[in-house]
Amino acid sequence: MKKVDTKVLAGFMELLPEDQFSFDQMKDKIKLVYERFGFVSIDTPVIEKSEVLLAKAGGETEKQIYRFMKGKNDLSLRFDLTVPLARYVSEYFNELNFPFKRYHIGKVYRGEKSQRGRFREFYQCDIDIIGNNILDLVNDAEILSVINTVFQELNIGDFTIRINNRKLISGLLESFQKEINKNSILQIIDKIEKASKDEIEKNLLEIGLEKKSINQLINFIGIKGDNNEVIESLNKTKIQNQLFKEGVSDLTKVVKFLKSFKIPEKNYCIDLSIARGLDYYTGTVYETKLNDFPKIGSICSGGRYDDLASFYTDKKLPGVGISIGLTRLFYTLKELDIIKTSNKTSTKVIIIPYDEKEKIIANSLETANVLRQNGINTEIYLENGKLKKKMNYANKRKVPYIILVGKENDEDKLTLKKMDSGEQIFLTINEILEKLMIQQ
Amino acid sequence: MKKVDTKVLAGFMELLPEDQFSFDQMKDKIKLVYERFGFVSIDTPVIEKSEVLLAKAGGETEKQIYRFMKGKNDLSLRFDLTVPLARYVSEYFNELNFPFKRYHIGKVYRGEKSQRGRFREFYQCDIDIIGNNILDLVNDAEILSVINTVFQELNIGDFTIRINNRKLISGLLESFQKEINKNSILQIIDKIEKASKDEIEKNLLEIGLEKKSINQLINFIGIKGDNNEVIESLNKTKIQNQLFKEGVSDLTKVVKFLKSFKIPEKNYCIDLSIARGLDYYTGTVYETKLNDFPKIGSICSGGRYDDLASFYTDKKLPGVGISIGLTRLFYTLKELDIIKTSNKTSTKVIIIPYDEKEKIIANSLETANVLRQNGINTEIYLENGKLKKKMNYANKRKVPYIILVGKENDEDKLTLKKMDSGEQIFLTINEILEKLMIQQ
Repeated sequence: MKKVDTKVLAGFMELLPEDQFSFDQMKDKIKLVYERFGFVSIDTPVIEKSEVLLAKAGGETEKQIYRFMKGKNDLSLRFDLTVPLARYVSEYFNELNFPFKRYHIGKVYRGEKSQRGRFREFYQCDIDIIGNNILDLVNDAEILSVINTVFQELNIGDFTIRINNRKLISGLLESFQKEINKNSILQIIDKIEKASKDEIEKNLLEIGLEKKSINQLINFIGIKGDNNEVIESLNKTKIQNQLFKEGVSDLTKVVKFLKSFKIPEKNYCIDLSIARGLDYYTGTVYETKLNDFPKIGSICSGGRYDDLASFYTDKKLPGVGISIGLTRLFYTLKELDIIKTSNKTSTKVIIIPYDEKEKIIANSLETANVLRQNGINTEIYLENGKLKKKMNYANKRKVPYIILVGKENDEDKLTLKKMDSGEQIFLTINEILEKLMIQQ
Repeated sequence: MKKVDTKVLAGFMELLPEDQFSFDQMKDKIKLVYERFGFVSIDTPVIEKSEVLLAKAGGETEKQIYRFMKGKNDLSLRFDLTVPLARYVSEYFNELNFPFKRYHIGKVYRGEKSQRGRFREFYQCDIDIIGNNILDLVNDAEILSVINTVFQELNIGDFTIRINNRKLISGLLESFQKEINKNSILQIIDKIEKASKDEIEKNLLEIGLEKKSINQLINFIGIKGDNNEVIESLNKTKIQNQLFKEGVSDLTKVVKFLKSFKIPEKNYCIDLSIARGLDYYTGTVYETKLNDFPKIGSICSGGRYDDLASFYTDKKLPGVGISIGLTRLFYTLKELDIIKTSNKTSTKVIIIPYDEKEKIIANSLETANVLRQNGINTEIYLENGKLKKKMNYANKRKVPYIILVGKENDEDKLTLKKMDSGEQIFLTINEILEKLMIQQ
């Protein structure tokens, strides 16, 4: 019989159990940090009505979306977790408590051109704080505090969270008086790290910005220094624009709150060049980079927006949030070989019956019982075969311990083998339990 | 502006945060039990090539599947986790260790007719043990041990796991000599609880079974008693069929292993009437019912199969596994109001600044910092407003504790309020920490 091809679709990540364990550990750590900051979990359908998902979207999103008919329903797979959040908050507005702090970890779908490190199905790990009508600026600092804790705990190297406030650049552009396409300018600025100063200037001239304005813009983005210095410079600029001034005031407040959160100063900095291409953000914006691997780009981004859900509700819902694209992050870290895990599997012990005598099998099952009842993740190798085959299996499974049952003449003694050192000791079940539980 | 309708699609479950927390807790408990038994996690794409998913399926599955074209690709959403497992094991056969014990908790999709308690998107929580060529019978007992532990820990009432062996009924039917449609008979028997004996007889006559055979069949299914009695009765039957005899021997062995696992005898029983409609199973079969709510039907089912992946590989892969349909289970338990949770949210404490003085806000942020660094899930209420509004928020969030910052003149003292009793005490941050950490 001709067999069906079992390769996974291009652009879809599928991991072997050992990598899956690393991936799950990262996902769990992120989840635990989100909960530690008081965010609550929601879970929305992967399938939504197309009119919901496409209410705002256009262009690229519409091309990439997985969209299909089922009976009379025009359906799509979600392409992010923000649009479902907007729908959720609108639908359950009266039953939710505001500020609504939710986290959502789930798969999203984008039919992008398949290329290395780009995925069509990937996990996003999102948090957002949604206010009812107003939302205090201190939340912008709290979000940064979450990012800081997540990347400290993921332990994947030094990182810098860069923040900016979109009001600054928007205000500056407003002050230019001449009618300009703000989004084109933001998109050009967003590429500042990859392009030369000359290129940026040329691009800005091309879209009709005056030479004087270009200089002002480039000078503004060029403001450098530590956080206090940047804020001092911002206060000294002579830009007479209300929005710009708000931006300076907001950024100053957020940085002050960051100090109260006692976030290590080496982990964040003001960077006036980050704009985040999306027109969606209206205040604070965040990007996060690994210091040793800046080329990866931002591994956690987000910002503040004035109104989450204007397509779905008349309520004004300002919010601030960030997203971690975990699938791509994991893939990249794996490629760079910088995922450090102490364990290779969730299993702690494999119990191996020395032979298939009824009594030894029964003793093995009982031993497993005791360990499991005490919360120790325990597998029993239950197939018949030579000891060598069994040991070989345990080696490949990369568990930290095995227990050999029935090797000793003394029925009450079991053989505990520590797999990294090869050390073997003969212990009673209670002694083993004590030893393994200390290390939980 | 006309707003887009935000109601979730019919047949899709979406929960408010409090219910979501209960749901997540059940999901996590199941996951932890699976890991405690040494199962490892896998995660496969929700989207598969249609030819993969439909290699074996037909009839109902094909009608229900979400299938669509994306570019030139004929794609479908998975309708269970077993077919993806078959593909996975076939694809990575050389890299996996056998017996391969995997768990998989994920969403699956069936475009069923929408009705109460039936979902089009739902979580399945599956475990399977897959052997390479052979798989010892003791695994069938281990699977039952997992089911037992899961439902003990979910704490949703007394339950009974019913087991049978498909070889018994298959052997019996073989012994009838006359050419018969085995699957039609199994389907009739599967309905035995809902139908009267007369109806069953009538249905069996209709499909051409002889009166003598019908009597033999009904007598066989009618064998009752405790596990030892049933096995004794089985051994006494005069049915001369090899397969039937194998069934008796297998069931006897499995029950013996169950005793070694020390599974409480009240939690399982042999029930010769359960057949599981699927022609897929070839040995042990399981069903699980809540004793107080038999009408819910089986909440955890599965069985042993000879060959997992014959459509994808030439390797012979016998296995045994079970599945919990968590979305439907949760929905049903919720309807019956039998979900017992001690907490309503993952958040343990909400910190409330007494007013908006800069010092008090800073002290609140620092207090949150300390608690979070010690692993206590802590939210800060950061909006301006009257104390009453803040307290109101904390009440609605149903956290066990709040901490009022700045109420006391003594700057080092905070007010800890236990929300269930209303008790308030004035403590230093270290005293609070000590108190809350004991209860983690």
